[in-house]
Amino acid sequence: MHKVIFDTDPGIDDAMALLFLHKHPQIDLVGVTTVFGNAPIEMTTRNALYLGSAWGIPAPVAEGAGQTFDPSRGGSYWPTAIHGDNGIGNVPIPENIDRVADSRPAFQFIIDTVRAHPGEVTLIAVGRMTNLALALKADPEITKLVRGVIIMGGAFDVNGNVSPAAEANIHGDPEAADVVMTAPWPVVVIGLDVTMQTVMTSGYLADMVAEGGSDIQLLSDISQLYIDFYKTRVGDGMVIHDSCAAVYLVRPDLFETRSGSIRVVCGGIADGQTIQKPDGRGFPPGAWDDLPSQKVAVSVKADEVLAVIRAALVSGRAA
Amino acid sequence: MHKVIFDTDPGIDDAMALLFLHKHPQIDLVGVTTVFGNAPIEMTTRNALYLGSAWGIPAPVAEGAGQTFDPSRGGSYWPTAIHGDNGIGNVPIPENIDRVADSRPAFQFIIDTVRAHPGEVTLIAVGRMTNLALALKADPEITKLVRGVIIMGGAFDVNGNVSPAAEANIHGDPEAADVVMTAPWPVVVIGLDVTMQTVMTSGYLADMVAEGGSDIQLLSDISQLYIDFYKTRVGDGMVIHDSCAAVYLVRPDLFETRSGSIRVVCGGIADGQTIQKPDGRGFPPGAWDDLPSQKVAVSVKADEVLAVIRAALVSGRAA
Ligand SMILES: [Ca+2]
Ligand SMILES: [Ca+2]
Repeated sequence: MHKVIFDTDPGIDDAMALLFLHKHPQIDLVGVTTVFGNAPIEMTTRNALYLGSAWGIPAPVAEGAGQTFDPSRGGSYWPTAIHGDNGIGNVPIPENIDRVADSRPAFQFIIDTVRAHPGEVTLIAVGRMTNLALALKADPEITKLVRGVIIMGGAFDVNGNVSPAAEANIHGDPEAADVVMTAPWPVVVIGLDVTMQTVMTSGYLADMVAEGGSDIQLLSDISQLYIDFYKTRVGDGMVIHDSCAAVYLVRPDLFETRSGSIRVVCGGIADGQTIQKPDGRGFPPGAWDDLPSQKVAVSVKADEVLAVIRAALVSGRAA
Repeated sequence: MHKVIFDTDPGIDDAMALLFLHKHPQIDLVGVTTVFGNAPIEMTTRNALYLGSAWGIPAPVAEGAGQTFDPSRGGSYWPTAIHGDNGIGNVPIPENIDRVADSRPAFQFIIDTVRAHPGEVTLIAVGRMTNLALALKADPEITKLVRGVIIMGGAFDVNGNVSPAAEANIHGDPEAADVVMTAPWPVVVIGLDVTMQTVMTSGYLADMVAEGGSDIQLLSDISQLYIDFYKTRVGDGMVIHDSCAAVYLVRPDLFETRSGSIRVVCGGIADGQTIQKPDGRGFPPGAWDDLPSQKVAVSVKADEVLAVIRAALVSGRAA
């Protein structure tokens, strides 16, 4: 069993990844931590609590950062055209949810949980990297105690999505991402290089609904706005960014990765860009030297990723 | 006939491009302007004069910039391991050369020559972009009078060569490159994406020497140090960066290009990185907006580029 803390800003593709982590038989979801990003922090926390309640997910939810790691960065923009005004596609959310958040802030929840299960917990982070950077700052020794970190974020050999240089999760808190990717723990970065190729058509989702019942019906309801947004970009379907990171945990064989140190550009026109120095490539001395070698996904077997998600969501099976 | 001003920092791959521009029957080389880069400006100017004399090239040589467009950038590093202590592979250069440089600085020579032949002159720039930026600053109207600009520089979908982000010509003067690539004149950028694939083996060069006589013998002598440097990187042979830009002028059909506005990162860890926003891709408002669409080479028929060079150098033929 893989113990997982899911750091997330639900978020529509976050919702699918959450349901996957809950339903996959080889994954023990020990906590959900929220971060601002697709919506303000109050909203992403409420959405995590709501989805936890609606899907019967026992994992506690701890509320995380509502501003960037460097607070002087200032305000945020909410991608309401993609994730809706409420962060989950404008589906109605009940006034009263029978869940409350953990009393600890997300970074403390991460530290406590990692220390309670040394060497066992994988952090899957699919929003801004703020909570993970705060956890590293408060307790740098967790780098030795975490089993691994899987990130959805960045764009390496392809353009970004919020600028030609940068992807949204990393662009939303570049200083935090630089801290996380240069820390001495094993990081795998699942970026736009592979997620943009991993598209679930609306027909595929509808078939899952037909096979799978009310949990998937709710996921489908949440997803329609997102599918509409991506229509002009990838044709009919949803880019399942965050689920790619979750699938990597159980099926790393579906991804080809490249090793090398990673830095994140902070400031200037390339703000939030992720740049890897591939291992074995020589350069004059520079900013990528003497840093841990991390993995970046460079190709994906997208159809098989979809099949892994379908098997877990529809029948709770590993595939 | 294509009228060309060749802006160059000879430089070993510069030397091959110079001989190509001189020998190609459809090219009228109307001037050579020098810039610092592979060696200090005094050396690149002397090398241009020497090669002009040795190869009987009638085009005048005008000396250009010896420091960056923004002088506060400060000092330079000379790549002596690649181009030798004298910039042309440590081949002996006579004390006295029967040529002197034009009395005008390079940027003024460019302005005067472009204005003398409105709509006819192509600038092929294969060093730092300093002279072109200075010409634009002194006479912005030349954007309407130049036929086109072909640049060897940058790295778009691949790593750089002086850092994971940046290629040497652009990294050597990012502010100048940003001015040149965002100016309203037609620019084609031939970067590492294609030049690193365009490798002339030492056997190919030796065959050219056997067929071609003393001009190519000198080119071969100059090139040996460079071939040694690239042995560990591309195997046996020389990456003919600068000649790719020269060949583009006469055989654009050998290159696939992508259109979109280009910006150059100035400062930070990605200093000197070139980033294109492909036309048709949508992003939130940003630094690439309302700029001219320029072309970036994304693939090359390398064998045919080599054949075009061989035909010109060996027999003065267009191929
Ligand atoms: Ca997310
Ligand atoms: Ca050059």
